[in-house]
Amino acid sequence: MAEPLTLHEDPRSGNCYKIKLTAALLGLPLATRAYDIMKGETRTPEFLAQVNANGRIPVLQIGAGTKGEGRARFLPESNAACWYLAYGSALIPADRFAQADMLRWMFFEQYNHEPNIATLRFWLRFVGEANLSAEQRAQIMAKRMAGCAALDLMNRHLADQAFFSGAAVTLADIALFAYTHVAEEGGFGLGDYPHITAWIARMQALPGFIAMN
Amino acid sequence: MAEPLTLHEDPRSGNCYKIKLTAALLGLPLATRAYDIMKGETRTPEFLAQVNANGRIPVLQIGAGTKGEGRARFLPESNAACWYLAYGSALIPADRFAQADMLRWMFFEQYNHEPNIATLRFWLRFVGEANLSAEQRAQIMAKRMAGCAALDLMNRHLADQAFFSGAAVTLADIALFAYTHVAEEGGFGLGDYPHITAWIARMQALPGFIAMN
Repeated sequence: MAEPLTLHEDPRSGNCYKIKLTAALLGLPLATRAYDIMKGETRTPEFLAQVNANGRIPVLQIGAGTKGEGRARFLPESNAACWYLAYGSALIPADRFAQADMLRWMFFEQYNHEPNIATLRFWLRFVGEANLSAEQRAQIMAKRMAGCAALDLMNRHLADQAFFSGAAVTLADIALFAYTHVAEEGGFGLGDYPHITAWIARMQALPGFIAMN
Repeated sequence: MAEPLTLHEDPRSGNCYKIKLTAALLGLPLATRAYDIMKGETRTPEFLAQVNANGRIPVLQIGAGTKGEGRARFLPESNAACWYLAYGSALIPADRFAQADMLRWMFFEQYNHEPNIATLRFWLRFVGEANLSAEQRAQIMAKRMAGCAALDLMNRHLADQAFFSGAAVTLADIALFAYTHVAEEGGFGLGDYPHITAWIARMQALPGFIAMN
């Protein structure tokens, strides 16, 4: 029998949504345990000791019990958790180049996309512009430009193909969909990116698709 | 016969070094073509059209020719290029959890480590503190703290095990080694992290190891 899967999450987080969408598309049962990151619930001594020493969600828990008991295993990093769930499925292409090319877009997502598009969404929608520090406010324009550059690259790539790594959906699409489809909450307009909006519609039409909220 | 492999690189970049170290540990021949990122050589129309529309190095080229001719394939993102090279080798564990756990550290590297430790090295060693913009200077303290947090997490993780994903070297170690072993060039002292310095010595003792410069 398969080990139970539990997602330690904040439901507002796109990184957590990636994992839930992957499980849904694969038909895998996934329990959830919610934390409020705005209240510091992932920085408690208990969370740091038992779930993730890095103090971050999401964390995918595989098996029952706690870290101290040594039975459950814990996997931080959203894209790594998606990889665990999708291992051996059609969401990860088997071909050597295709697999590396899929990971290329997942690393792009963590380096070029998430720190700009997800961070501006978090700052503007959840923290509130009036509550930002001077250092944060000084970064808004740079993050805006870098986020637009990421969207522009994605839009040009999608001009030629239905999904990021070819004709079928893979983890690269799930990773990039999570914060792209709510980019307007961070002040990014998607109207200039027709290939992205067509791809968003294709994602939402997938069998088993679940919405973020 | 295997397709020729060419790395489009700047030799000062730790991201490029990851790929060269992976090839060296695997005994794979790898040609290189150098660009000077300080002179904008990866932002030329030719580079954007033929190598990487994202204007970044490293890019691993698989096969001969140019993009326009449709024979060669191009793989941006250092960690994806390492994955391509190491596919099917012992540098990627075959076990489902171990593979995901290795990727966990590679995504951590791109999100928590590289934007802090590599960026401060680039700013302080290559750009020069006097040449930084006000926005960049305002970020130094936050990047310093986040970089120290990444090193602290790594140091605690290595207290229990020889390499990041267990007893043997994997791509996670290569990805994290690249900028950690030169972190002092970004103003990070490694003296407080004895498990990291012991791991650096283990990395440098690997058969086939090559130094960065």
